[in-house]
Amino acid sequence: MSDDADRRGDDADRRYHVDGEIVPAESATVHVEDRGFVYGDAARETMRAYGGRVFRWERHADRLARSCEALSIDHGLSDADLRGRVDETLAANDLSEAVVEVSVTRGRRAGGSGRSGGSGDRFDPRVGGDPTVVVTVRPLPRGGVGSDPVFDGPATLQTVKTRKTPDRAVPADAATHARVNEVLARLELRVTGADEAMLSDPDGRVVGGADSTLFFTDGTGLKTPSLDGPVVPRVARAEVIDVAEEEGVPVEEGSYAPSEVREAEEVLLANATWGIRPVRTVDGIAVDGDGDGVAGPLTTLLSRLFDRRVEAACYGGERS
Amino acid sequence: MSDDADRRGDDADRRYHVDGEIVPAESATVHVEDRGFVYGDAARETMRAYGGRVFRWERHADRLARSCEALSIDHGLSDADLRGRVDETLAANDLSEAVVEVSVTRGRRAGGSGRSGGSGDRFDPRVGGDPTVVVTVRPLPRGGVGSDPVFDGPATLQTVKTRKTPDRAVPADAATHARVNEVLARLELRVTGADEAMLSDPDGRVVGGADSTLFFTDGTGLKTPSLDGPVVPRVARAEVIDVAEEEGVPVEEGSYAPSEVREAEEVLLANATWGIRPVRTVDGIAVDGDGDGVAGPLTTLLSRLFDRRVEAACYGGERS
Repeated sequence: MSDDADRRGDDADRRYHVDGEIVPAESATVHVEDRGFVYGDAARETMRAYGGRVFRWERHADRLARSCEALSIDHGLSDADLRGRVDETLAANDLSEAVVEVSVTRGRRAGGSGRSGGSGDRFDPRVGGDPTVVVTVRPLPRGGVGSDPVFDGPATLQTVKTRKTPDRAVPADAATHARVNEVLARLELRVTGADEAMLSDPDGRVVGGADSTLFFTDGTGLKTPSLDGPVVPRVARAEVIDVAEEEGVPVEEGSYAPSEVREAEEVLLANATWGIRPVRTVDGIAVDGDGDGVAGPLTTLLSRLFDRRVEAACYGGERS
Repeated sequence: MSDDADRRGDDADRRYHVDGEIVPAESATVHVEDRGFVYGDAARETMRAYGGRVFRWERHADRLARSCEALSIDHGLSDADLRGRVDETLAANDLSEAVVEVSVTRGRRAGGSGRSGGSGDRFDPRVGGDPTVVVTVRPLPRGGVGSDPVFDGPATLQTVKTRKTPDRAVPADAATHARVNEVLARLELRVTGADEAMLSDPDGRVVGGADSTLFFTDGTGLKTPSLDGPVVPRVARAEVIDVAEEEGVPVEEGSYAPSEVREAEEVLLANATWGIRPVRTVDGIAVDGDGDGVAGPLTTLLSRLFDRRVEAACYGGERS
């Protein structure tokens, strides 16, 4: 694929990895009886490749394993096999700067007869199928110093009415294909056109963005919702905390009201796709006071340090 | 298809309806980028066909429309078009006794470039796709008087720790492809081997089975969890209530503790697949006292009246 095609995100030649084979993206499909489709009954991990290397592969592999464990899906693949499929997919697309998604479904639901499983329904996850493994990639600018950013400037963040699903219903640390909770949160943004939804738990405590981890500072260090609540333990979340602590910035994982975020001096979001993305407004209120969209000093520092880690891990010869 | 094949649930010749076309079931697929697969971002309605006719089509069509509305999915198809696809699928399979599922997804997520939608991610449901419509069918015995039942005798019901997702996270009246909450509930049954999981809301009030509506009686009428909680407003739920009221059985929709179900004189489950299924044990305790598995008098009455309605609507010349 040419550099031009890569930058345009042209997907005419795109290849995906489905059930052990590289296939043209256009014919990359799953069966309509696959439980990943009918029930969202699948684990997914989203990661970034920089310079052809997945950033923090081991941590993503661990998280994928935990998600599969929460769903009791046994894909039977070694870490090396999974990583091999990712590398193969990147190579087949001649992609070095990309977002990679690895999905593992429980496979097709039980047989054609309604009476399979002895209960007249095929919803039952106890009737084992053959897991489906899908790897998709898409080009994304490298980001960081001297590259196009992967997002259109600082984000606008908006409180929504949809509450985050509690851990007792679906544990937040299980990254599954069932994402309607977050879809409904994002749909609420149609009115304001904001970039990201800020969700709270049923008690009204902030848990983060619909698809990102939330950090903020009131001038006394970095704060983020603690994992005691239904908070997604993203690899990017751990990385930002690690970056801050290494720099001597105090990190507090706690329980916060939306008003604390609205009144913060700086707000930032993190996920595998964006890395660190500054927030410009919260509920229409300018975070930085003058609304010029220039990230504050802590956000700028953390972004630079994050980029440096990416450089070291993916471009500097280290292997995550 | 021969009667024999029909009874065996042989699916070698099965046909499904995908995006406007009848296709062999084996090649019935959706793209791996379809939001129904990646996010469970799709509505689904499950219904029964008896004698080649869908039972209560209008109510199921209404419910599908409400689910699509909750997700803001506009499939643009008329009721007649949707029904035509269902009838076509039944005809293509030469099936008269069947379970039918109609799914409508938001379609594929936005373009190949990571920067589509201006936010560096393709999770955003506001970037409209082209909805995918899938109709699947599978043979199921007719049930009712003089036919094989569609379930293996009365059910064993087991309380689980997984709590039902609250309405503020995902409204229970939106029937979507995101069913991990119910999958986790069913997975808890691996220890006891029970047929169905009994879920409560976060406050500990019973909401029903993982895939069925719960009814019980303490001798003073029929009781069922009210729609004030995160209770699925199944077509079968409304039908059973209607049947009971027509017969002069008092129906109470209320808020109940699991102990009330455990101590009930009769317990029954209802959904489109099973119709009415008696419950034999709750948390290992025999409902009928002697554990002989014979349904109690109210359950038997309601089942007979339910079957009579099916006869009248689907075999007697009425059109639902």
